[in-house]
Amino acid sequence: MESHWKELPLERALTFIEPGPVVLVTTFDGKRNNVMTISWTMAIDFDRHIVLTTGSWNYSFGALMERRECVVCIPPADMIETVVRIGDVSGADTDKFRRFGLTALPAATVAAPLIDGCMACLECRVVDHVEPYGFVVLEVMRVVENTACRDRRMVHAVGDGTFVADGERYDCRALMADKLPPGL
Amino acid sequence: MESHWKELPLERALTFIEPGPVVLVTTFDGKRNNVMTISWTMAIDFDRHIVLTTGSWNYSFGALMERRECVVCIPPADMIETVVRIGDVSGADTDKFRRFGLTALPAATVAAPLIDGCMACLECRVVDHVEPYGFVVLEVMRVVENTACRDRRMVHAVGDGTFVADGERYDCRALMADKLPPGL
Repeated sequence: MESHWKELPLERALTFIEPGPVVLVTTFDGKRNNVMTISWTMAIDFDRHIVLTTGSWNYSFGALMERRECVVCIPPADMIETVVRIGDVSGADTDKFRRFGLTALPAATVAAPLIDGCMACLECRVVDHVEPYGFVVLEVMRVVENTACRDRRMVHAVGDGTFVADGERYDCRALMADKLPPGL
Repeated sequence: MESHWKELPLERALTFIEPGPVVLVTTFDGKRNNVMTISWTMAIDFDRHIVLTTGSWNYSFGALMERRECVVCIPPADMIETVVRIGDVSGADTDKFRRFGLTALPAATVAAPLIDGCMACLECRVVDHVEPYGFVVLEVMRVVENTACRDRRMVHAVGDGTFVADGERYDCRALMADKLPPGL
């Protein structure tokens, strides 16, 4: 082993698999809106399916399983502190929309709301729940983009309390032309 | 609906759930090394488990399922063109290590190799395979970081042939102190 390869504690493993963008997932339980911060997300095909990892430790999980729908909202980097704070309180005893001054907008295909200020929102229905991993498989029903959101930097959780925002963009479309499905 | 919210084609959904860092996954089939590019990755707990989405369309999948192990290597942004090209040819007819001038280094816990030039490598064993989604659940056995890799920018696939690299870092450790497990 060359000396520039340094062994790290296993706890650091996830910081190198820093997940997809940190998202705000809204639900509606029949009476009120709630929102949770989720950083463990993944695209799983080119056919509108995505997956979140969550579970009953999140209060929103009950509404998500019962109503079988949610909105996955993508906050820009300038919302990072609010995003972290949303993840630090429970909807069991807090109206997070009020507490954090979030504006709920009506979605078209689900009862859960969009969040104004996010750069995009994905209206989703729950199509599966895979235990023991807590995988919640979602089908995206509608995608809306906020053209007024100037900050296009998605935020990525490193997993250790630090976050990084996207920077430079690389266009490799030509290299991948034969692999991209229509619509992308 | 406020007019600054614009509806997009559903195919665009995954571009907002831009996944974890693009990784190079190495395998050893008993005779030779292979490597595939995977952009659908997710952390799933704080206990060394991560998941990839893949399947038999990747030649490496056979060795991955048979040998039940791999190395997940994290390439820096300056390797982006090589990373995309690795994903564009098949190990069925190409020795990718030779073709792309990759240096394989021995791992300590698995037979699949590390890739010199990557910023970190996670030696993993396969603990589950969840169909029909193609989830390959991995347990990380060892983490090694390349201290000679100066470029620390992870690359994120947008899903449409473009990629973004990480930029600015935000430290929210203090806000999350009660949620971080020991070791992070």
